[in-house]
Amino acid sequence: MSSEPGILSGLTLVEGSAFVAAPLGGMTLAQLGADVIRFDQLGGGLDYHRWPLANTGDSLFWAGMNKGKRSLEVDLGSERGRELVTDCIAAAGAFLTNFPARGWLSYESLASRREDLIMVALTGNRDGSSEVDYTVNPATGFPWATGPRNHGDPLNSVLPAWDITMGEMAAVGLLAAERHRSRTGDGQLVCVALSDVAFAVVGHLGRIAGATLGAHETPRDGNYLYGAFGHDFATSDARRVMVVALTNRQWNALVEVSGLVDAIKAIERAMGVDLQSVDERFRLRDLLAAVLRPWFEARTLAQVREAFTGTGVSWGAYQTFSQLVHEDPRVSTDNDMWELVEHPGVGDYLMPGTPLDFSAFQRLPVRPAPLLGEHTEQVLSELLGLTAAEIGRLERDRVVHCARRAIATTSRA
Amino acid sequence: MSSEPGILSGLTLVEGSAFVAAPLGGMTLAQLGADVIRFDQLGGGLDYHRWPLANTGDSLFWAGMNKGKRSLEVDLGSERGRELVTDCIAAAGAFLTNFPARGWLSYESLASRREDLIMVALTGNRDGSSEVDYTVNPATGFPWATGPRNHGDPLNSVLPAWDITMGEMAAVGLLAAERHRSRTGDGQLVCVALSDVAFAVVGHLGRIAGATLGAHETPRDGNYLYGAFGHDFATSDARRVMVVALTNRQWNALVEVSGLVDAIKAIERAMGVDLQSVDERFRLRDLLAAVLRPWFEARTLAQVREAFTGTGVSWGAYQTFSQLVHEDPRVSTDNDMWELVEHPGVGDYLMPGTPLDFSAFQRLPVRPAPLLGEHTEQVLSELLGLTAAEIGRLERDRVVHCARRAIATTSRA
Repeated sequence: MSSEPGILSGLTLVEGSAFVAAPLGGMTLAQLGADVIRFDQLGGGLDYHRWPLANTGDSLFWAGMNKGKRSLEVDLGSERGRELVTDCIAAAGAFLTNFPARGWLSYESLASRREDLIMVALTGNRDGSSEVDYTVNPATGFPWATGPRNHGDPLNSVLPAWDITMGEMAAVGLLAAERHRSRTGDGQLVCVALSDVAFAVVGHLGRIAGATLGAHETPRDGNYLYGAFGHDFATSDARRVMVVALTNRQWNALVEVSGLVDAIKAIERAMGVDLQSVDERFRLRDLLAAVLRPWFEARTLAQVREAFTGTGVSWGAYQTFSQLVHEDPRVSTDNDMWELVEHPGVGDYLMPGTPLDFSAFQRLPVRPAPLLGEHTEQVLSELLGLTAAEIGRLERDRVVHCARRAIATTSRA
Repeated sequence: MSSEPGILSGLTLVEGSAFVAAPLGGMTLAQLGADVIRFDQLGGGLDYHRWPLANTGDSLFWAGMNKGKRSLEVDLGSERGRELVTDCIAAAGAFLTNFPARGWLSYESLASRREDLIMVALTGNRDGSSEVDYTVNPATGFPWATGPRNHGDPLNSVLPAWDITMGEMAAVGLLAAERHRSRTGDGQLVCVALSDVAFAVVGHLGRIAGATLGAHETPRDGNYLYGAFGHDFATSDARRVMVVALTNRQWNALVEVSGLVDAIKAIERAMGVDLQSVDERFRLRDLLAAVLRPWFEARTLAQVREAFTGTGVSWGAYQTFSQLVHEDPRVSTDNDMWELVEHPGVGDYLMPGTPLDFSAFQRLPVRPAPLLGEHTEQVLSELLGLTAAEIGRLERDRVVHCARRAIATTSRA
């Protein structure tokens, strides 16, 4: 663990997790200095081989979602393994999980071992039934509102946005519960369901109200922005840019920089509209896009960038993942959030720390994901006070696995 | 304000905000019981008319993003108005904003009025330059990875996922800073940039590593899941469903329920593959989708639901926003998260409370968004100790506006 204090130093939690939401919730806290101990089945859990993969077969996803955690590798099928995990949860005092909160992992069972336990339990649905981002997203309405105008079918998002949102909300829930415990001494169970997170956001964005009141249906509309002017344009060098005008200031800057002040005035007269209205700009979006298009088609991305920089125009260039890594200075060590870190056996690449900067703290160094089982020995010794001999016996009995960094990178290749 | 205590009771913050991230961050805390006072320019800020709109012209978006807050309506162009807001921030001790943190709203200026101030400042980019969800999303790489296989252009997401993530992270940052203050008495400035939030998540998901190592490029792939089997299917009644097999258990359940055990075994022999491998299921996704398709095409959505319920199949039905509201029992008052609440002058609709359930607390009632200026009088009186006469004078001088609920709903219609 880092010797530098982070803002959450002193907070310890055990994480029993797989895939996106729970691991991201734990990592959010770990990157702020909490001691997060993730336990996994011997050989790795369900997400240990999740794509994207390196050419070595290592999961770049797993490495991304578990940065800065400690790894405890245990046989969860054995009574003794479950006891060890239970002991760690009791010692840590906080538990974050998306595993079924039943039996030995139920709040009642765990709280009987540690009265002031905080447990944050993530489920698919509120009734405890299963749901993943890719099955709940279809229910939200967004896939029917996403895609090219002439596309007939719903279109999924590749980004698991609901999982990501739930991960951050899990961190919120844990911090809120810890705040309460620090004031009262009382722990509690915090529950959150993925479908609730998703549908609540649909509500927050006004879409539940809209559908209830029958005010505006939302047909899919390609890359147009909803309710304001925003569209994408090709440049002369076959790049694409997105331009947005949520405010009059943004719109007027766009019209001025593109030299279209007179053209837009003429359109206002011809159509009898006032384009200082965000609603009118949305209504006339096809016309406005057609008027703007030649300006972009006559310019390279570099020329567009030069023309827009320093103005009030709100815009952005489309990038592939590769262009993001290789062309965007915001993803580089010029940005304090990124560090070039070694992923043992795989290579060096840029890893992000927390996006949150706290003025009273130095940024913590970006720590890579652990090797699976890298901290088994350390955790059993520090949290449970087991001796080296006892841990050795557990390893011989295949109850736990202790990875050693230098050995492990070759023995697991 | 509610008289029932929430888990964040006792936390007060002022919010100066517009659009999604900062309002969502504040609302996340408000729905947990924090006292969140949003101030706005007289007549409303830049997001006061953001779509979706009700037929009355009221913004359903604004109503969605500001539930449970108090509203202070002030002339921010006047010296006296700015003083009042500054006084409120100093009295509250915490400030969340996506306004430019300069001049009178700079941390230095505000902290000179309240030494232990916590300020969470949201920006577009780390250098303070502007960026919105719709301009940063193109840079992330996801629009080039989203959309039908044969689609040539990048495709935007309609959901502002980065804003939503930043909103929740802002709440995490504020709670972490408040934890530190409660232990040390020290406040601080917390900064977070939208592009950092977005690009960090791209990194967490392994996409930065993948692009750096050149391991796997990710061409757009329609509604197929990345790196596992997952696809959408039409039903006989012209509905669509998404089916996912991230695990062997999910895959085997799908094959069994659809009666394809023998067919899949024959395919394994014919192709010389083992479909108990998630990688092989991904590689053969077109074939597997074609084998599964007739089963779905022969059944209605209700029949699919009946066949899958109680099995280990991971699936979900596609719904429009309207179907979500009218057909999905998870969005109804059968679910404790939802309440039918009146939006004054607009109508009743289901509003979500927080998705987080804390066992030590009753759920707070779902409170609607305030009328603009509804709490001006209350806030100036409670936080600043102004008398009714002083507040009346401020209103006559058009420095503040005090909306009164009964009057306001008609006078603003």
